Amino acid sequence: MGQETKYSQEEILELRQTQFAEALRKADAAKANELYEHIHPVDLAEAMEDWEEELLSRFCGLLEDEKLAELLEEADEKLQVELIHKLDNSRLLKIFGFMQKDDIVDILGNLRINRRKQLIDLMRAGERKIITELLGYDEDTAGGLMTTAYIALNGQLTVGAALRKIKEIGPKTELIETIFVLNHQKQLVGTADLRDILIANDTDTLSSISEEQVIYVEPETDQEEVSLLVSKYDLNAIPVVNKRQVLLGIITVDDIIDVIMEEHTEDMLQLAGVSKEETIDSTIPESVRRRLPWLCVNLITAFLGSFAIKSFEHVIAQVVALSATMTIVTGLSGNSGNQTLSVIIRSLALGELELKGSWKLILKQAAVGLVDGIFMGICTGVIVAMIYDNFYLGCIIFGAMVCNMMIAGLSGALIPLVLKALKQDPALASSIFLTGVTDVLGFFIFLSLARVFLPFLL
Amino acid sequence: MGQETKYSQEEILELRQTQFAEALRKADAAKANELYEHIHPVDLAEAMEDWEEELLSRFCGLLEDEKLAELLEEADEKLQVELIHKLDNSRLLKIFGFMQKDDIVDILGNLRINRRKQLIDLMRAGERKIITELLGYDEDTAGGLMTTAYIALNGQLTVGAALRKIKEIGPKTELIETIFVLNHQKQLVGTADLRDILIANDTDTLSSISEEQVIYVEPETDQEEVSLLVSKYDLNAIPVVNKRQVLLGIITVDDIIDVIMEEHTEDMLQLAGVSKEETIDSTIPESVRRRLPWLCVNLITAFLGSFAIKSFEHVIAQVVALSATMTIVTGLSGNSGNQTLSVIIRSLALGELELKGSWKLILKQAAVGLVDGIFMGICTGVIVAMIYDNFYLGCIIFGAMVCNMMIAGLSGALIPLVLKALKQDPALASSIFLTGVTDVLGFFIFLSLARVFLPFLL
Repeated sequence: MGQETKYSQEEILELRQTQFAEALRKADAAKANELYEHIHPVDLAEAMEDWEEELLSRFCGLLEDEKLAELLEEADEKLQVELIHKLDNSRLLKIFGFMQKDDIVDILGNLRINRRKQLIDLMRAGERKIITELLGYDEDTAGGLMTTAYIALNGQLTVGAALRKIKEIGPKTELIETIFVLNHQKQLVGTADLRDILIANDTDTLSSISEEQVIYVEPETDQEEVSLLVSKYDLNAIPVVNKRQVLLGIITVDDIIDVIMEEHTEDMLQLAGVSKEETIDSTIPESVRRRLPWLCVNLITAFLGSFAIKSFEHVIAQVVALSATMTIVTGLSGNSGNQTLSVIIRSLALGELELKGSWKLILKQAAVGLVDGIFMGICTGVIVAMIYDNFYLGCIIFGAMVCNMMIAGLSGALIPLVLKALKQDPALASSIFLTGVTDVLGFFIFLSLARVFLPFLL
Repeated sequence: MGQETKYSQEEILELRQTQFAEALRKADAAKANELYEHIHPVDLAEAMEDWEEELLSRFCGLLEDEKLAELLEEADEKLQVELIHKLDNSRLLKIFGFMQKDDIVDILGNLRINRRKQLIDLMRAGERKIITELLGYDEDTAGGLMTTAYIALNGQLTVGAALRKIKEIGPKTELIETIFVLNHQKQLVGTADLRDILIANDTDTLSSISEEQVIYVEPETDQEEVSLLVSKYDLNAIPVVNKRQVLLGIITVDDIIDVIMEEHTEDMLQLAGVSKEETIDSTIPESVRRRLPWLCVNLITAFLGSFAIKSFEHVIAQVVALSATMTIVTGLSGNSGNQTLSVIIRSLALGELELKGSWKLILKQAAVGLVDGIFMGICTGVIVAMIYDNFYLGCIIFGAMVCNMMIAGLSGALIPLVLKALKQDPALASSIFLTGVTDVLGFFIFLSLARVFLPFLL
């Protein structure tokens, strides 16, 4: 690394990727396998997304099994499927031999059911059992995330014996820093830190140096809850146990980071009514298909707002100024409600909140809306009264603003909390529902006030 | 753990917290210190946020230094400051002796400048140097996140010697799984996995088993970029080096998770124009103060929309139906634009995108808006034409919808990209700017079309 500092990390990377592709084109297996060692599989997988068919075939043909295994783990779903199509079952099983069980399960999950069955049937009985079990868990739960590549040792083992086991199993595990301590019933009774094992006396038992307080989850636990626990307790892995406290697997922190990223993407997209599967790489028809459903819901809320206005057409016909000013009320309330919405959805995502017992919070958000409404109402009222030279129009807009901003605060808190209580994603198109409420009520309140004070407006 | 499964993890926790507070009230130091071992410091810190002054004082008086150190690391800023107020400088220095340098720096950063200076002056020269250096880095950069508690060894060391060093330094480090390998100039030349060290021959050199491809950052690197690298390469720590490749510190994955959580909260809140410091615990005046600035910006955009309508008052006066239908155009376009906005902001946060070279993407989003606009325009046009029994009104709303949804797609992509290019947070109130654009242009386009076709509407 020392002498390469003249080039940036990116430049070196690009150079190596080009050399690697060149070696494949020349069918130089030795060179390709050697160059592979100098590229991070994550970067290679990224570059391969743009490769032509021919080069991918070469890659599968020339690279060693272990390297293919590593690359498959890092490849995105599309590339994974492409590569697997080029590999026959016996080769694939050899490659699986170099992979963690949870990664094998992820790959199997992306395959057609026929191919998946073929592969599972070809596995050794022991492996088949674990894989089938792991495939049974929902992808979004602790069971779907966990790996079986951990070190679990009996607490009665001496430190010396434990260390020998660790040296033996270590290379095949995802985590070595934490050793899971079991009793004779295979129940999880604690964790031991490798640091403590390294400095303890060879004759101490593992139990004597282990930590008995363990944060654990069950296989059914939702991945979002798992990620909150890992983040809260700064864990590098969290064990998954069954009801009888028997250790089933562990979830490592790198998978948790992926979960956190995924959940946040989901929150942000769903808030606006976009399917969580949409990315900037989605094609136009895909994007349209994923957004139209919520726009249709929006069409309904928009027409409700329109009907609210329509029922006051005779009032507007007499005072056209109402038409230009009513949108100020709804526009500001909509955005004000969205402010509340984002604070509440964020708290829900961080696990700080639930509907039960949150009436105080809802009232507080309504109060914030009220205060913001008074401020904005005064500003708007004064400006409108001056522009239209009509004191009463200013008063009407002030009153409507205060009421509607309070409603916006209330709805901004209520909508996500209710969605959550209904076991829906609290972000699910809540912005569309919110502006529906603030538009319909905003127009209604403003125009009702206008009708009452109509004589003063003419 | 085995026999406690009758109680849930939460119940056990609550029981222990009560016992602990009880021991403090009785000033039973031995009992309190013993009970402390059975509560996770994260949970204790959380419970302590609700404790009265008196109990906190007791806690500081009765608990051992090492335990106080642990708790201070987990406490939130408010609790930290409260506890530190109850500790004198000499005690605090003893407590710092049990803490990681990066945590000490975080605490010092929260103190008044006087107290901070006093404490730094009282430190030993070596420690003072490191702390002052760390305090010099911006909180949001790699330098501000890094810790100096890592294991770095010379590559020429034999595995046997390395293992002895690891046993010696290990207990004081945050990470033991990865050993950083240096050359004689203290430059980072690779990393060694503890697994490989454990199984290698005692006489091998560390260099011979180390991985030379290291992903690293510089101390000035922004924390968001650091978190993207850690997440992309599934790292458990990332080294921080200076321009000469000399290792300065490492950032561990638990701090990265905090960064990711923080950055996402920021994105979601700023999108709606809420200060990133707002939480559900903010008081009403705090919330109001943090939201009003962007509502004021919104007031301006709302008045711009209002002026657009006002300039067509003579048209509306003749066809009042326009007043009720124009809001359908702006409402749908606003939400459609927000869909694009959320996809783009999410991609920016995941580091997948920048303004340069993204014109294709911007056009694609405009195209999605156009197609969605055609669908929604047909629906709205047909319904409106039927309700008002006027074919031309339907055509006008169709035309306005198509144009404005396309503009919404364009703006939804452009606004965050431009904010990013201006080195602003791409989420910064972009929703408010977006609805500003879609409202003003939506009203303008719809009412302009209406003016052109006015004879057919009467």
